[in-house]
Amino acid sequence: MVKIGITEKKDENFSEWYTQTVLKAELIDYSQVKGFIILREYGFSIWENIQSILDKEFKKDGTKNAYFPLLIPESLLNREADHFKGFTPEVFWVTKTGDSDIENKLAIRPTSETIAYESYAKWIKSWRDLPLKLNFWNSVLRAEIKDTKPFIRTSEFLWQEGHTVHETEEDAIQQVEFMLKLYKKFVNEYLAVPILTGKKSDKEKFVGADYTLTLEGIMPDGKALQMGTSHHLGQNFSKPFEISFLGKDEEQHFAWQTSWGVSWRLMGALIMTHGDDKGLILPPKIAPIQVVIIPIYYDDGKKNEILGVINDIVEKFDSNNIRSYVDSSEQHTPGWKFNQWEMKGVPIRIEIGPKDLENNSLVVVKRNSKDKKNISINENPVDQIVKELDIMQDELFETAKSKQSKMIYESNNYKKLCERLNKERGFVKVDWCGNRDCEDKVKDETGADIRLIEDENINSLCIVCEKNATNSVYFAKSY
Amino acid sequence: MVKIGITEKKDENFSEWYTQTVLKAELIDYSQVKGFIILREYGFSIWENIQSILDKEFKKDGTKNAYFPLLIPESLLNREADHFKGFTPEVFWVTKTGDSDIENKLAIRPTSETIAYESYAKWIKSWRDLPLKLNFWNSVLRAEIKDTKPFIRTSEFLWQEGHTVHETEEDAIQQVEFMLKLYKKFVNEYLAVPILTGKKSDKEKFVGADYTLTLEGIMPDGKALQMGTSHHLGQNFSKPFEISFLGKDEEQHFAWQTSWGVSWRLMGALIMTHGDDKGLILPPKIAPIQVVIIPIYYDDGKKNEILGVINDIVEKFDSNNIRSYVDSSEQHTPGWKFNQWEMKGVPIRIEIGPKDLENNSLVVVKRNSKDKKNISINENPVDQIVKELDIMQDELFETAKSKQSKMIYESNNYKKLCERLNKERGFVKVDWCGNRDCEDKVKDETGADIRLIEDENINSLCIVCEKNATNSVYFAKSY
Repeated sequence: MVKIGITEKKDENFSEWYTQTVLKAELIDYSQVKGFIILREYGFSIWENIQSILDKEFKKDGTKNAYFPLLIPESLLNREADHFKGFTPEVFWVTKTGDSDIENKLAIRPTSETIAYESYAKWIKSWRDLPLKLNFWNSVLRAEIKDTKPFIRTSEFLWQEGHTVHETEEDAIQQVEFMLKLYKKFVNEYLAVPILTGKKSDKEKFVGADYTLTLEGIMPDGKALQMGTSHHLGQNFSKPFEISFLGKDEEQHFAWQTSWGVSWRLMGALIMTHGDDKGLILPPKIAPIQVVIIPIYYDDGKKNEILGVINDIVEKFDSNNIRSYVDSSEQHTPGWKFNQWEMKGVPIRIEIGPKDLENNSLVVVKRNSKDKKNISINENPVDQIVKELDIMQDELFETAKSKQSKMIYESNNYKKLCERLNKERGFVKVDWCGNRDCEDKVKDETGADIRLIEDENINSLCIVCEKNATNSVYFAKSY
Repeated sequence: MVKIGITEKKDENFSEWYTQTVLKAELIDYSQVKGFIILREYGFSIWENIQSILDKEFKKDGTKNAYFPLLIPESLLNREADHFKGFTPEVFWVTKTGDSDIENKLAIRPTSETIAYESYAKWIKSWRDLPLKLNFWNSVLRAEIKDTKPFIRTSEFLWQEGHTVHETEEDAIQQVEFMLKLYKKFVNEYLAVPILTGKKSDKEKFVGADYTLTLEGIMPDGKALQMGTSHHLGQNFSKPFEISFLGKDEEQHFAWQTSWGVSWRLMGALIMTHGDDKGLILPPKIAPIQVVIIPIYYDDGKKNEILGVINDIVEKFDSNNIRSYVDSSEQHTPGWKFNQWEMKGVPIRIEIGPKDLENNSLVVVKRNSKDKKNISINENPVDQIVKELDIMQDELFETAKSKQSKMIYESNNYKKLCERLNKERGFVKVDWCGNRDCEDKVKDETGADIRLIEDENINSLCIVCEKNATNSVYFAKSY
């Protein structure tokens, strides 16, 4: 018989634990084509929650949604050659329809800069048309040659890509920074995942960008996970795509642009950060089911009475926008159900059996701490559950922060830096001269990249070459 | 200078009127690749409204969303050969990633039956796993060889595809009929578009289906527009894909399946049905902006006072969930704005100038009838606007019904049927023997198909062969 629960320990075999968790909790399944996954209904409902919260925030900022075609002519991709070079080996090419060859092959979008900006150039005439702020929720395809991992590295992924156009560089910079803050707030407050934010090095930035701001998570195995980026595109696209406008000064100007995105990687981060040996732990604010209610009866004597009490509670949950689910299925024991819903990461479990009914109480079990307590049915149980959910949201963030902080080191000794990166994993903060050679040297010896630049204009020495340092940076290995 | 408004009359050159309207109202733009369109923000916001209403209804019925991969291995498509044959000439094939050829070419999904059912077979073990009801909001690609037309016939389109699995044939049939009703109610009540519903002939049904139910709109040029379908798939897929389950009787059974979908064609139907020579007319329930407010001031004397009054009204609209927009841009005259918002189909326009301020009133103009009236600012203007929006929703449906009814004919004479279909367009209801030869004969002589079968088991003669008729059917030419 197949063991239903997770058979690997998170601390012992993190990678296998992760794969088992996403599969057994029924978030995803594999597809026949390597690198492609199916987002099952339970996983999709987490993605829907992420979408709906972010979408509201984007709209508040005046960004609107649109849809651009899946297929992009090669000529368009070549127009901004630097940008495209980065995607060349990863592009899926359409060369036939039916039995006929297509004259000029078409790329499945690896990202939509080129196809969107071709249209932007047509739409934008005057400063009055700016800012133009659009977002696309879609899927993009990039053939993954490395090992694939659900949510983290797949050949197709769901994401959103925002593309804005501004009159001045200042406006563009403001947008780039605003989006970083918006993402950070969301990741902290909803996903309860702590992150570091900063600038990418020139080597690591998006090739078409003047600079890239990044959100970097530190996963339990000490590896960095890039969870979102916000790019200042400068005029790197507006010039080749001729996105220009008549300014207030009656002169033609090239526009300033930004692009920014997060993907279902956020789900990967969430699972890795909070899960335990029993499976998922979902932060209440993002959980599709916040409370699962399990009636317990071994004969039919009290069944109707128990289900009646549950019905009343569910109604109260509904009217308080608490997402609850009653598992009254009869083919499984209560114990089996406890395990099942623990694996699926539901924040709170309520049990109610004949004895609880007698005492007018409910058993409430928290997924993160396994704390169990009785609450009275008469003393506004919904308020108590709301409070527990809020507390759990905070607890998850605090726990994650404290774990994360233990994986951040500082170093001012090159040898120790390399030892640390080679052995223990985690982020190491060092001072750096800004020189690509020094960055590459660390990469060669340890496999670690600069994940982000935190401070600029410091007064110190580079950990590699010992010349004057310009920045504090974090090195880490990454997904 | 380019004329900004629509330059073609709807009655005179319907096709050109349609194209101008979707472009000039900024619903869409063309892409560089033939047959592909960009859904711009205004068009997308209509699609978002359609999505959000339907999505709620699907969920009420217990259907959940999921996401399946874009690329499907050829072997999977071939497994249900009949089904696939219909799509063969239309499939976009991926044959390369980067510079490398792919060993087995991959299809961009023309629809997801095959890839979904492959997984369904893995997931379904017992009658307890049924019904399984999933829906996918995605885009599908089918190369269009015929003339393309925005929303109506494009090589990529946005849609939803629902795929359900049931224990018994009865349950599947119930689902097929339920979805038809759900779609019909939505199209009537929200889009204000009247339709005919019924069964497709065997020739016209979805190849993989036992039978297909259809929603057929009649466009102002008399052509039929298929606006949605609900398929009873029987066991046609469950057998080749081996979707079987252990029944309550402890025996293995093949499952019964349905699939159903509507696409952005609904937007095409909406535009064609309601629009006029000035552009779009959007039914209030689906309009992204229900009320546009245009302040009128020729100098700055009353400006702040007018904007203050408008602010108060907008707040009331917001708290009553009325979607309003204030066009206070200064580069255009009020007259220009009137035309612009009429072209964009906003149901109600409110004007407020210095004189209106003096009289404590607002000018309210209805997009469909152009009726203009003054309403008092003091007498709860929001209630009055809500009432006007409701009335307009009804008026649009009534007008559309009355126009539609004039394009439905009955006939019991073959010669007259052919004359009618060749000259006037519209739907012609006739009696039919059920024989493919008779169906083909009408097609050959007129280009018209059977759009739907309305009644079965009638007692009459076939209009073509004059043998016993089994059904009343509607013939029409179609998009």
